[in-house]
Amino acid sequence: MFEARLVLEAVKELITEANFEVSGGGITLQAMDSSHVSLVALSLRSDGFEHFRADRSFSMGMNLNNMAKMLKCAANDDVITMKAEENSDVVTFLFESAGQGRVSEFELKLMDITSENLGIPDTEYSATVSMPSTEFQRITKDLGSIGDTVEISVTKDGVKFSTNGDIGSANVICRQNLNVEKQEEQTVIDMHEPVSLTFALRYLTSFTKATALSPSVVIKLSKELPVVVEYKVADFGYVRYYLAPKIEDEEMEEQ
Amino acid sequence: MFEARLVLEAVKELITEANFEVSGGGITLQAMDSSHVSLVALSLRSDGFEHFRADRSFSMGMNLNNMAKMLKCAANDDVITMKAEENSDVVTFLFESAGQGRVSEFELKLMDITSENLGIPDTEYSATVSMPSTEFQRITKDLGSIGDTVEISVTKDGVKFSTNGDIGSANVICRQNLNVEKQEEQTVIDMHEPVSLTFALRYLTSFTKATALSPSVVIKLSKELPVVVEYKVADFGYVRYYLAPKIEDEEMEEQ
Amino acid sequence: MFEARLVLEAVKELITEANFEVSGGGITLQAMDSSHVSLVALSLRSDGFEHFRADRSFSMGMNLNNMAKMLKCAANDDVITMKAEENSDVVTFLFESAGQGRVSEFELKLMDITSENLGIPDTEYSATVSMPSTEFQRITKDLGSIGDTVEISVTKDGVKFSTNGDIGSANVICRQNLNVEKQEEQTVIDMHEPVSLTFALRYLTSFTKATALSPSVVIKLSKELPVVVEYKVADFGYVRYYLAPKIEDEEMEEQ
Repeated sequence: MFEARLVLEAVKELITEANFEVSGGGITLQAMDSSHVSLVALSLRSDGFEHFRADRSFSMGMNLNNMAKMLKCAANDDVITMKAEENSDVVTFLFESAGQGRVSEFELKLMDITSENLGIPDTEYSATVSMPSTEFQRITKDLGSIGDTVEISVTKDGVKFSTNGDIGSANVICRQNLNVEKQEEQTVIDMHEPVSLTFALRYLTSFTKATALSPSVVIKLSKELPVVVEYKVADFGYVRYYLAPKIEDEEMEEQ
Repeated sequence: MFEARLVLEAVKELITEANFEVSGGGITLQAMDSSHVSLVALSLRSDGFEHFRADRSFSMGMNLNNMAKMLKCAANDDVITMKAEENSDVVTFLFESAGQGRVSEFELKLMDITSENLGIPDTEYSATVSMPSTEFQRITKDLGSIGDTVEISVTKDGVKFSTNGDIGSANVICRQNLNVEKQEEQTVIDMHEPVSLTFALRYLTSFTKATALSPSVVIKLSKELPVVVEYKVADFGYVRYYLAPKIEDEEMEEQ
Repeated sequence: MFEARLVLEAVKELITEANFEVSGGGITLQAMDSSHVSLVALSLRSDGFEHFRADRSFSMGMNLNNMAKMLKCAANDDVITMKAEENSDVVTFLFESAGQGRVSEFELKLMDITSENLGIPDTEYSATVSMPSTEFQRITKDLGSIGDTVEISVTKDGVKFSTNGDIGSANVICRQNLNVEKQEEQTVIDMHEPVSLTFALRYLTSFTKATALSPSVVIKLSKELPVVVEYKVADFGYVRYYLAPKIEDEEMEEQ
């Protein structure tokens, strides 16, 4: 339940409506943000649910803000059940309090949404950075108060985030750091070749709405390819964000 | 003191000015909200005050927001005294800190307010529901995020709150529940005959501003009569709200 | 670091840009607010810094909001270093995390600001009141909800704050109070002659943004002179505010 809300919070700033694809294997969702710049992909495997049954594969178009409104009506320790009948135009959320003194039934109207499922090829990335998700959130927020874009550069020594703005400039360097007790507090840099790409900060900042989902974030970079920013959902899924690099940056690099 | 502020918070969203009726027996207030849809009645018995003296009965017209502004100027552990002289056009609030290092005197201008005291007949209600006030607050808030009106239906099994809106519909059923340790956490349903009435949610939501006053709320319903929503003020008074049911509902029931 | 942010919060509501004067002795700043009514003076001695070196005296014009933006990018336990090169048009803030896993470098553009350093003569004040800073903050906030100006009157018995407004009036009397354990909770009145002056409340309220800097505030009053409101910065500096009394008050006193 808790995770259902966190997942929604993680994606509803970027996308307002989306098709949830349900099958025996679980639930997936893929959608571009309204400005068609970034892509969100969500996957939740069926074995992560206490109980999961899907007799056939189908798609449910939902307004994510309305879905979030209804999920907010569940108390934290309620048992949540989501039910959808074949050919129904609603999905039902059932919230039962411990002891079942209160039973709430919320029906959300479904929508027809034209979806455009993009195949995302599996790629070998030039550099993969794993770092604490709160640190990545803080850096995008801090740099966002100075400039509009961020250059992310990975060398074997560390990852550098740089920005420029009217009031000045900023550089944050995070070094590889394996000497911490918890694995999720480590900064791990896995680099095949150095890479330096520039991105719009406001999208990266939106991606960090997923910070509550996972203590660490994985960032994958390759020249001319969209960056992948990935947050695990417990041990049964993920939210991934894709964002194309700024062309200007490419040009600057070629000079 | 603490209660004085809570009582004000409980009523000042609905009514901005009102006559406080003071007599040897205590303080009462009765006023309709500015749209003349709901009625608020407050009663505080004199024995609930540490010290109370009224040589005669009189009425003090006050702007509740201004009164709240002045009461906010008292520190939590100040001793508060309210004083009014005969024929004066001000009421004085005296706040004394423990040890009396600080003494504050606030004078609030009184107003002439035309009051219209309605006699509220004592009625035998079809159904009386007592439930945790936070639960009632949560339900009105949750349903208010879906629809504009709520149908409250009481049967011997429980009380059902239902709403409908553009995004979908919702139903919350609370069953009688006596198996909890504290009396104020019980849901008790006392029903002579089933009753089902529809109300504007935004008024019910305003009534729940009184939630901090009492852990439980009592809701009294009878066909074609205004609902009564009652919160106790410690053991020496109450705030009661009255709201007429929607006529449309009556028509729907008759069909 | 913590203090650097508190000092900025204390002054940036009143002044948006200012010249920081740096010399071997420390850092000072003096500026009038944008409406040229009140004056802020800041002084931080060099011995209060962990490490301080200034090879020559110079002035750095900064936008305080932009400076605050950059200082917000330091984590609470970062080591902060401020660096300025001769003839540079930027100042550099360096934030290093414990263990130096993260190193951030923020460059803030400097500005040319015409400064008008006023000599403030040392004066023997008629009355000096030292009181808990939170109490002074609370009084200016409370009276500000009733009226626009406050009359501050000091007699040997105490200090009285009075205001008048549309909704009524208010008086708060604080008596000398030496019988408290901590010195900063004392109210100490040092009076050569009684004094009564009237000030615009909104400036006093702005001054109390410095409350977090020090548990006590010192208020110095003399007829026809600006009031001084002083907050200590740890044991190595101060923030002082100056505000001229209202002329109307002088006239009223003369009647």
